[in-house]
Amino acid sequence: MKDTATPTVTTGPLPASRKIHVAGQLHDIRVPMREIALSGEPPLTVYDSSGPYTDPEARIDIARGLPRWRGAWLRARGDVEEWDPRPVTAADNGFAKGARLAPEFPVRHRPLRAREGRAVTQLAYARAGIITPEMEYVAIRENERRTAAHARDGEPFGADIPDLVTPEFVRQEIAAGRAIIPANINHPELEPMIIGRNFKVKVNANIGNSAVTSGMEEEVEKMVWAIRWGADTVMDLSTGRNIHNIREWIIRNSPVPIGTVPIYQALEKVGGVAEDLTWEIFRDTLIEQAEQGVDYFTIHAGLRLHMIPMTAKRVTGIVSRGGSIIAKWCLHHHRESFLYEHFEEICDIARAYDVSFSLGDGLRPGSIADANDEAQFAELRTLGELTKIAREKDCQVMIEGPGHVPMHKIRENMEEQLKHCHEAPFYTLGPLTTDIAPGYDHITSAIGAAMIGWFGTAMLCYVTPKEHLGLPDRDDVKTGVITYKLAAHAADLAKGHPGARARDDALSRARFEFRWEDQFNLGLDPDTARAMHDETLPAEAHKLAHFCSMCGPKFCSMKISHDIRAEAERQKGMQEMAGKFREKGALYVPAEAEEG
Amino acid sequence: MKDTATPTVTTGPLPASRKIHVAGQLHDIRVPMREIALSGEPPLTVYDSSGPYTDPEARIDIARGLPRWRGAWLRARGDVEEWDPRPVTAADNGFAKGARLAPEFPVRHRPLRAREGRAVTQLAYARAGIITPEMEYVAIRENERRTAAHARDGEPFGADIPDLVTPEFVRQEIAAGRAIIPANINHPELEPMIIGRNFKVKVNANIGNSAVTSGMEEEVEKMVWAIRWGADTVMDLSTGRNIHNIREWIIRNSPVPIGTVPIYQALEKVGGVAEDLTWEIFRDTLIEQAEQGVDYFTIHAGLRLHMIPMTAKRVTGIVSRGGSIIAKWCLHHHRESFLYEHFEEICDIARAYDVSFSLGDGLRPGSIADANDEAQFAELRTLGELTKIAREKDCQVMIEGPGHVPMHKIRENMEEQLKHCHEAPFYTLGPLTTDIAPGYDHITSAIGAAMIGWFGTAMLCYVTPKEHLGLPDRDDVKTGVITYKLAAHAADLAKGHPGARARDDALSRARFEFRWEDQFNLGLDPDTARAMHDETLPAEAHKLAHFCSMCGPKFCSMKISHDIRAEAERQKGMQEMAGKFREKGALYVPAEAEEG
Repeated sequence: MKDTATPTVTTGPLPASRKIHVAGQLHDIRVPMREIALSGEPPLTVYDSSGPYTDPEARIDIARGLPRWRGAWLRARGDVEEWDPRPVTAADNGFAKGARLAPEFPVRHRPLRAREGRAVTQLAYARAGIITPEMEYVAIRENERRTAAHARDGEPFGADIPDLVTPEFVRQEIAAGRAIIPANINHPELEPMIIGRNFKVKVNANIGNSAVTSGMEEEVEKMVWAIRWGADTVMDLSTGRNIHNIREWIIRNSPVPIGTVPIYQALEKVGGVAEDLTWEIFRDTLIEQAEQGVDYFTIHAGLRLHMIPMTAKRVTGIVSRGGSIIAKWCLHHHRESFLYEHFEEICDIARAYDVSFSLGDGLRPGSIADANDEAQFAELRTLGELTKIAREKDCQVMIEGPGHVPMHKIRENMEEQLKHCHEAPFYTLGPLTTDIAPGYDHITSAIGAAMIGWFGTAMLCYVTPKEHLGLPDRDDVKTGVITYKLAAHAADLAKGHPGARARDDALSRARFEFRWEDQFNLGLDPDTARAMHDETLPAEAHKLAHFCSMCGPKFCSMKISHDIRAEAERQKGMQEMAGKFREKGALYVPAEAEEG
Repeated sequence: MKDTATPTVTTGPLPASRKIHVAGQLHDIRVPMREIALSGEPPLTVYDSSGPYTDPEARIDIARGLPRWRGAWLRARGDVEEWDPRPVTAADNGFAKGARLAPEFPVRHRPLRAREGRAVTQLAYARAGIITPEMEYVAIRENERRTAAHARDGEPFGADIPDLVTPEFVRQEIAAGRAIIPANINHPELEPMIIGRNFKVKVNANIGNSAVTSGMEEEVEKMVWAIRWGADTVMDLSTGRNIHNIREWIIRNSPVPIGTVPIYQALEKVGGVAEDLTWEIFRDTLIEQAEQGVDYFTIHAGLRLHMIPMTAKRVTGIVSRGGSIIAKWCLHHHRESFLYEHFEEICDIARAYDVSFSLGDGLRPGSIADANDEAQFAELRTLGELTKIAREKDCQVMIEGPGHVPMHKIRENMEEQLKHCHEAPFYTLGPLTTDIAPGYDHITSAIGAAMIGWFGTAMLCYVTPKEHLGLPDRDDVKTGVITYKLAAHAADLAKGHPGARARDDALSRARFEFRWEDQFNLGLDPDTARAMHDETLPAEAHKLAHFCSMCGPKFCSMKISHDIRAEAERQKGMQEMAGKFREKGALYVPAEAEEG
């Protein structure tokens, strides 16, 4: 796949949608949302992660990147300084050369970092009682222009979701560590978002090349495509060549937080030989990535040497890439993990840029047989210890979770995480509820994801149909995102989130009234819904039909329901009239006579 | 679509699979199963619903039908007699003529019915202490050639699943009404199966034409295709022309139970005018279908006149086709449902053929807003009353359930059904856990189906991606079946069914050992898994690769896990040697010197 200078990405609004902006009260901010026009009712406002790509008024130029609009806030705080960037080396791009070297992003920015002794994380500000523009921004975003409280209908399992989110509520949640706003000071293109149990359940999409396939253009488009369909964050899990350059193109063009697993790039720098990793190479990689603007790092610092033998009897061993890499290093050197031993120094780096931690679950179960075993929970408890350390350093933290877990063991995962991890947000991969359906693991895992989201998990990492089989392509990315958006929404509904029901009710009203276009446009994937309908009923006139090809005109239950309601109305009218006749003691008395 | 005399259907075994048969002990029976050959282990035996179509030794001729092998059992009982069939009328085929009339099935059989005063249902036999060949057959089937008990690991919520199913256990479950074997005496081609909370969770696939699309050939192939992928029963929900003739082709060629909703055909007979329905027409339709061999009838006898106003405030009214039809009739005539009033006579017909009841949920919720409302549960309680009446008449009964239900309301459905319906098996449609994803409703509903299966639902009626949008085609049927098979299996796992884990563990072992073909072949859809893998790594040599394109050779966590285990082994060997050295007090002592 030839990398050209300016990749093309998918732009344009979703059907019947326009980009609107809601202004802040405390700060000079404009928060984007999506308004879906309906034919039978007022428009519906929904959360919108798709960035400027769906704004017809935005001028998109991938080679320039998105507007670095957050820069003003960052400088206004007065606690950061510009710095000379760490020079990019050939190792950063896996020693790719010539035609194999992806083009460098055309614009170079000088990175920011915290001034000496200053804490520039959202957690530090929150603890200091400061409501940042980012906090107000996410408060407005979460409310989706909702003004009134809905009647609650759900089982929140101890979550505490307010009717309307205020900036102060956001500050409290962040100060308590129950929520994070991943927002590296070097990612000023970001549209901030919040991850926490008391907010909408979020979805992450994974992109990134491997040694076998994909490149810069495809990955930038995958990011734009993923957020178009609703991904709230994107992780760049590239493991092939050009990791540095590809990442720069992605971050400069991403309105959503970007996460990475730095040990991948570190491994590439040592030619793929895990034993040759060193703390110094890893540290250097952290700085390289923090300067580029990575918003959260997955660090498998909870996987300690003594836990490795606990995996000996597992059916699928260690299935986490990062986990297996650090485990191999530990065992070879017979030393404690350098990630664990140097964790405080990692915190010092993260806090200088406000990179959030996603404390990795290197020992997550990769099969039903391994679920909830000793290794998994030993690591989880260590992640709890590390959470405390990180927070002492003002670092924002979320905790990663499984994996493959049968339904009856899912609740225990949430309970253990709440017990040991000081209310840090939980961020799970599924979990998959059975191993027997490769090709359909977006579905085996949507079941577990919806359930664990209901129980309190704050963000769900998607799984695509390609899981276990190969690198996902663009179609797989979309399928994974839509699947996880519906699972996250099912969780919000079950938790009684006051903003969730509006969309289900609007769509069901449209369905019942045969407003086909409205039904499609309110769905998570209007294009697919419309195409499926049109397979058998393609003519425009069919969009006014009071049936579809499932049942045809005589058997449509919704059509018949309307007939029933009309009949009931007619009879009610007759009953009232019959009532009047009986009072007068005659079969029929004309209305005029009544007045006599 | 032109109907030819002999439709072609998909035949041939699934990959690496052969058809095996297990003999009975009490009766002369041979129970088919599927054995999957593996390269690294003994073969795995799994349940097999696909019938003779996957048996290379079977000669398939759709125009002759499957062998009517159960006939010997039926006659041996001595309680049935042959009868002249009710003549087929033009109305039975919706007045189709000429080229539009589907061909009649080429072979005519004389139907059986119960001799005067005899009860020929599995329930009657079970109560009389008789273990029928059908009962032994399903006991063998459920065990999947398992001989030893597995350690239990699950949460059965009061289900009572034995380590190994015995014919006596089957008899008890049927006698108690907790399970049914839908097996019309006029369906001798049937391979009997059992539906009950204490057995494997089953899956139903819906097929059938509509006025808008599809015909006989397509529907026969859909049935064969659906059971190939694992559907345990199939419902023919045809609402277009040729309902009688299409159904005959389906039943004569179906090894699985066939269900119908007789009111559809009755409505066709009155030209689609619900008000013109009569008890007589309905009764005649029941006999027509029972003589053909329909194994279970969905009858919406629990939808009573006084319940209809309860739906007035619903967002989506009445979404059941049958429910809306009978509701329209009731309201127009302002009379109680003839299904309810004539229910005992319906039982008399059913018991003469052993047609099981699927008591319909005409008032199921069709939107999240309507879930668990007054109308829904009023009908459920009536279904409980009708269950008692049906059982007094020796009729087998299962209860249909919702629908659209958010996760936090699913458990209540199971509890209410257990409370009111005398332990009859529950048979739900999903439920869908959110309304916002048309095009993906197989997934929104797989979430609810897996959960309600875990809670005790015995059979899950599938939902395809086309739900709400159009009639499913063959691809949709497959997607729906695989999705529901994984949901049913996730439920079995969570319940701790002793036979469930074997397949997950076998597949995960294959995955961990890079036995790619084994991994694909053990999956629910080997073709799709293989094709997805081969999109990026198509060469035969890649099937020996210790990686796939997700991570490539350097980053495959499973490959690295093997390295880790090898290293641990090596170190253990060194440690043992080091231990010996230390005991001897020297850095190195050659082994020979030790013996000195």
